[in-house]
Amino acid sequence: MKLGTVRSGEQSRAFRQDGSGRTFYYDLEDVGSLLNIPDWERLPSREGEPPAPADLLAPVARPGKTICVGLNYFDHAAEVGKAAPEVPALFSKVSTALTGPRNDIRLPGLSMEVDWEAELAVVIGKRTTRADEAQAREAVAGYTIINDLSIRDWQRRTSEWFQGKNFDHSTPVGPVIVSPDEIDPESGLRVETLVNDQIEQSGTTSDLIFSVTELVRYISQVLTLEPGDIIATGTPGGVGFVQKPPCFLQTGDVLRTRIEGIGELCNTIQIGNDQSDGPARNSSKQLEMSALRRTARKESRQ
Amino acid sequence: MKLGTVRSGEQSRAFRQDGSGRTFYYDLEDVGSLLNIPDWERLPSREGEPPAPADLLAPVARPGKTICVGLNYFDHAAEVGKAAPEVPALFSKVSTALTGPRNDIRLPGLSMEVDWEAELAVVIGKRTTRADEAQAREAVAGYTIINDLSIRDWQRRTSEWFQGKNFDHSTPVGPVIVSPDEIDPESGLRVETLVNDQIEQSGTTSDLIFSVTELVRYISQVLTLEPGDIIATGTPGGVGFVQKPPCFLQTGDVLRTRIEGIGELCNTIQIGNDQSDGPARNSSKQLEMSALRRTARKESRQ
Repeated sequence: MKLGTVRSGEQSRAFRQDGSGRTFYYDLEDVGSLLNIPDWERLPSREGEPPAPADLLAPVARPGKTICVGLNYFDHAAEVGKAAPEVPALFSKVSTALTGPRNDIRLPGLSMEVDWEAELAVVIGKRTTRADEAQAREAVAGYTIINDLSIRDWQRRTSEWFQGKNFDHSTPVGPVIVSPDEIDPESGLRVETLVNDQIEQSGTTSDLIFSVTELVRYISQVLTLEPGDIIATGTPGGVGFVQKPPCFLQTGDVLRTRIEGIGELCNTIQIGNDQSDGPARNSSKQLEMSALRRTARKESRQ
Repeated sequence: MKLGTVRSGEQSRAFRQDGSGRTFYYDLEDVGSLLNIPDWERLPSREGEPPAPADLLAPVARPGKTICVGLNYFDHAAEVGKAAPEVPALFSKVSTALTGPRNDIRLPGLSMEVDWEAELAVVIGKRTTRADEAQAREAVAGYTIINDLSIRDWQRRTSEWFQGKNFDHSTPVGPVIVSPDEIDPESGLRVETLVNDQIEQSGTTSDLIFSVTELVRYISQVLTLEPGDIIATGTPGGVGFVQKPPCFLQTGDVLRTRIEGIGELCNTIQIGNDQSDGPARNSSKQLEMSALRRTARKESRQ
């Protein structure tokens, strides 16, 4: 089963898709509202055409919380020069940081260190406190994709990563939530970032240091997870800032984030392109410069 | 003007109190809902008796975000052995971490390092992005009190403080929000923590490294502040873990958090007292031990 939220005129609507692709729509504005209704499976719905991929929105419009896990793949911990943590390293994103699976990511011209982090995200379906392993499994409504876009210079400004991870609408989520009966992260789902169709990250969820079940169990010792909450499980190796020379996203770059069995996010980067930041930076001259820099970097690695 | 939320049977209600103490009630469940209505000042309200202090709840039931500032007083930065930061150090609390101004704080028996952090909190009244100084001033609906209760051993588990700051219902907020025409943090408001009526922290908001206006301006460069959002501005010197020997809260301790011109939070600590954590720890024997430990500590400091 897949759950999603689709644009519908000026509004939005939650839908469910069964294994054969039949789509059923609910009179609810997003999957967050759906999951917060006990026994939502019994709600009336009406069958309709499958949604157009371009109309898909972030499945949960405003999660009560989005908890992110740092350093949860050995190769990523190694590439950033950190030891793998003994317990999950947690931080959070506020809901204003999230955006849809196809939206442009518009950032103010305050930084040039815009980096990618493809991640499997868990969506909670059930209020859960101090879960044991079985309860942790039951808490999961399904899986979706996040790119935990990171503004590295802001992330490094203080010991706390929060400010580099919470720029407005910088974190794409979606395109749908896939239920645990369809995919199993422990069996290994390919997680990839592509920038302008070049693969930058390619890992597998079977390499997670703390599994989904362990993360839900651990986090629920501290706090109560609620329907619609999201846990971003961490990123595999291949981020931009550790490359030599470091590689960051530029205006015009197309960022694709893929997870096997879920789908793809596709977002174009726009940096410093709004009125308050002076002249637009996505001129053809700049796109050309960006392409040249990228090619030069790739050649220097070969 | 003061704004607050009061228990009303099984429900709750937002109210406004004018300078003469006249109280007006709204058909809204909390101040968060009130502030999210444009021109809420024009909403109908009806006058009633002032609320009983024991019936006051956290003014904003579920803030869209609660952003906390670390190390924002020189004496606190010094006592924890850190340099005063060049930019605000930010982290966040999820809404499940908050509790009312008089609620017991019930923590699972996972830690003995439960510490206090009295803080002035700013409540946002207006959607604000990339504010200049004047816009930052206009963004503030008023001020309230937070105790950013910190589970030190969990805070130190990883580089990110999040998990030590987000235990369920561990952060009391309230009792009311006082508008900026009544109090001015820059003129110096006394901020205090008392444990069992003994003063542990006593600072003044005129010593904030980054003022309220600077914090709103800085944070709004990163993200959009929305009505009902909270910024906890940091704590003055006098936290428990740096004392010699370290001093932590115990079951039965009464934690008072006071700010001049706003009022007081009063919360009793309960650690590991629920069924899932084994036998209750708040036995009279333990309260006695706690009192003995506290007295011994105070004597050793004199």
